[in-house]
Amino acid sequence: MATDIRLKETELQSVTDQLVESYSTCGRLHHLGHEPLPNREAVADILADLYEVIYPGYGRRQNLNTSNITYYVGSLVDALHDKLTQQITRALRHDRCHEEPDNDCEAEGQQVAVTFLQRLAGVRQVLEVDVEAAYRGDPAAKSHHEIVFSYPGLEAITAYRLAHELSDLKVPYIPRMMTEIAHSKTGIDIHPGATIGPGFFIDHGTGVVIGETTEIGNNVRLYQGVTLGALTFDRDDGGALVHGAYKRHPTLRDNVIVYANATILGGRTEVGESAVIGSNVWLTKSVEPFAVVVLDNPQHKVKGGKTRAAQEELIYHI
Amino acid sequence: MATDIRLKETELQSVTDQLVESYSTCGRLHHLGHEPLPNREAVADILADLYEVIYPGYGRRQNLNTSNITYYVGSLVDALHDKLTQQITRALRHDRCHEEPDNDCEAEGQQVAVTFLQRLAGVRQVLEVDVEAAYRGDPAAKSHHEIVFSYPGLEAITAYRLAHELSDLKVPYIPRMMTEIAHSKTGIDIHPGATIGPGFFIDHGTGVVIGETTEIGNNVRLYQGVTLGALTFDRDDGGALVHGAYKRHPTLRDNVIVYANATILGGRTEVGESAVIGSNVWLTKSVEPFAVVVLDNPQHKVKGGKTRAAQEELIYHI
Amino acid sequence: MATDIRLKETELQSVTDQLVESYSTCGRLHHLGHEPLPNREAVADILADLYEVIYPGYGRRQNLNTSNITYYVGSLVDALHDKLTQQITRALRHDRCHEEPDNDCEAEGQQVAVTFLQRLAGVRQVLEVDVEAAYRGDPAAKSHHEIVFSYPGLEAITAYRLAHELSDLKVPYIPRMMTEIAHSKTGIDIHPGATIGPGFFIDHGTGVVIGETTEIGNNVRLYQGVTLGALTFDRDDGGALVHGAYKRHPTLRDNVIVYANATILGGRTEVGESAVIGSNVWLTKSVEPFAVVVLDNPQHKVKGGKTRAAQEELIYHI
Repeated sequence: MATDIRLKETELQSVTDQLVESYSTCGRLHHLGHEPLPNREAVADILADLYEVIYPGYGRRQNLNTSNITYYVGSLVDALHDKLTQQITRALRHDRCHEEPDNDCEAEGQQVAVTFLQRLAGVRQVLEVDVEAAYRGDPAAKSHHEIVFSYPGLEAITAYRLAHELSDLKVPYIPRMMTEIAHSKTGIDIHPGATIGPGFFIDHGTGVVIGETTEIGNNVRLYQGVTLGALTFDRDDGGALVHGAYKRHPTLRDNVIVYANATILGGRTEVGESAVIGSNVWLTKSVEPFAVVVLDNPQHKVKGGKTRAAQEELIYHI
Repeated sequence: MATDIRLKETELQSVTDQLVESYSTCGRLHHLGHEPLPNREAVADILADLYEVIYPGYGRRQNLNTSNITYYVGSLVDALHDKLTQQITRALRHDRCHEEPDNDCEAEGQQVAVTFLQRLAGVRQVLEVDVEAAYRGDPAAKSHHEIVFSYPGLEAITAYRLAHELSDLKVPYIPRMMTEIAHSKTGIDIHPGATIGPGFFIDHGTGVVIGETTEIGNNVRLYQGVTLGALTFDRDDGGALVHGAYKRHPTLRDNVIVYANATILGGRTEVGESAVIGSNVWLTKSVEPFAVVVLDNPQHKVKGGKTRAAQEELIYHI
Repeated sequence: MATDIRLKETELQSVTDQLVESYSTCGRLHHLGHEPLPNREAVADILADLYEVIYPGYGRRQNLNTSNITYYVGSLVDALHDKLTQQITRALRHDRCHEEPDNDCEAEGQQVAVTFLQRLAGVRQVLEVDVEAAYRGDPAAKSHHEIVFSYPGLEAITAYRLAHELSDLKVPYIPRMMTEIAHSKTGIDIHPGATIGPGFFIDHGTGVVIGETTEIGNNVRLYQGVTLGALTFDRDDGGALVHGAYKRHPTLRDNVIVYANATILGGRTEVGESAVIGSNVWLTKSVEPFAVVVLDNPQHKVKGGKTRAAQEELIYHI
């Protein structure tokens, strides 16, 4: 038995040695000897605090009213200032510490945090229009409460609008972390770099992808599974992808509706004002304002099979 | 430094003032001065307790047997009664307190909680048929244990069947909260108002959407990405959507199979008994019993390109 | 009031009795009197520890460097050995206790745990190639850090690669539990039995399904909503599905790219080296190396409607 334990210890020591050895050969997978990155749990916590400030009375703390709300929000804002300063400073320091060692990242982090907080009231005004658009766009919505309280589309849009402000303030890492937290919970993947006007509504939402350089006007509505994606990638002379935000995703003008699982691709593809794109349509060219694009009478074969086995013959041997 | 701190305090005070000001102008985003809504964490906790009662021995508590199970379930039922009464009462009070101030919401909440608990044994009988349908329908299923233990389809169907009972008992908010908790975990979005017979199986499931007025018969099987959605919305004379559960989603009769990413739309669309709808089909008209609907020989262009660049020429310039 | 309480007690007692009674009739939903299964929280915890060992410095613990990393990883490996032994032993004992009562499941569990840990350094070498493929394949990627830190595709692939090793070591339950944990967080469903070469990249990823007998070569790239699925199921003479890993999912050779929402089905379907499958393509036949398969000029009807009502006439009455 003692031998067994020694054997086990030797084996585990050898596992550790192999892993540590692999940190020198597989350099892309570790983050040793770097300044710390923003912390995922801390960013999730900041996002949760921001929801409290934006939708007070719906979340953690209920029984709020006009008398006690100032104290509650005041203390949240105070805490958010500190938490944001810490994480933004980490993100700034991580990316710049070697290049600009004398830069006062903490002072810059604090200033960015304050600027971001000053924009929150403006973000709320846009979200107010988003909630109204959801109510107007979904016959299953029983009330505005239900939308704020339980619609994943609004949760993803809220995370995007907050992340977009941080992205606009040139904060690294944290914007994408925020939209990925929402992606994980809702299945809706909106890149923080996208530009989206007020009155935006996503119904159901699972599988929606909105790329980095997408432009969306006012009062646009999307359903589940819609992709607003890239059609071409720029390459350098060696054939490697160019990394950066050149326009490669489509533009949707005001009042566009895109039904479930439609795919719209390309940086020069523009969907004109008030156009409607039908379910499952695959679009790589621009369409005029007020156009309606639907699948042409879909090419189906309909046959009958009186038994499951006869049916399988049909469906599997086309 | 002292000036800096005072400056920061002034700035943050001003952020708080702007936010509080915005609560009077953006009325749809806050919930101030209302009766409290059901609490999200409490509803998630209730759902977790219900899974323990329905699938005893698979979850939190293992090592259960026929001797100790009565004590375990008895104490769960007792706790569920209290938790359900509290949250259902909140939901009822929130929606009725202004209209019917004298209504005894707590007595009603308790009665609804008991009626719901009395239905659980019946829900289990339906779920038993669902588990068997999953085993019969998935060749990758190694055992019934694996299905109960790790299939997201069964998790979403369980949440739907519980939420549907509460919806049937006219409880506001909580049914949708329950199905959205399951939606977030599984990517499967089933409206609690839908009607679904026993023997229902969803394989993989991410992206499935089943609308509020969908009717599904016995022994129906769906794959990932299937939409059972609306084709038309009713509007009032002013052009605004009518909110309410008029029939706008399809009907699937017994033994229907719908393969991955098919889309079936419309309240008058009926898929007849034992019909099979193929992958990616887009269907807005009724089909006969035993029909097989597949994409007609899909219109592909197949070309060759000896280099990636030549291939991209082809794929991007259609 | 006392009557009320007694009435309530009687009602709840009757709910418990019905539920306990249902455990004898609905045998598939409970797990009473069995050896315990692996614990879900424990497996999630193991997966989290494995991420720490594979991507040190990115997760829970930051500020790691070449001096302190050996201590950190050594203590994680030690804890992982114990946790893995316990859960693997449960999985082995659960499935074999009746058949092989004398088998020393704990000794076997410990040996499997050690063998699995010995493979981790090799798994890291494959993941290094995966991360590089993600950077080369996504123009929105700002850095390798961002990929490791926030790309759901890499998270799902990591869980798959770990689960695949346990599956290869014939451990029941735990592999599927691991991939379902990742499925829930990322919307990407990879069966642990699939075979996938290095340099694998999934962008966005929600809705991706990769079946049990799929074979994927080196440097393959998939986008969101891609299904690699089954086209036929084997049945026994009685018409029941055969359960087991016979080849029913496709093969993708080296350097294949499959764009968003494409569906590739069937165990004899082979996508040749360097072929490109376009967005929304539905493929059930093999394609040659270097082929490019795109939707033929998609059959759309484009019409105009100057008002939303006129548009709805068009879109809803095809």
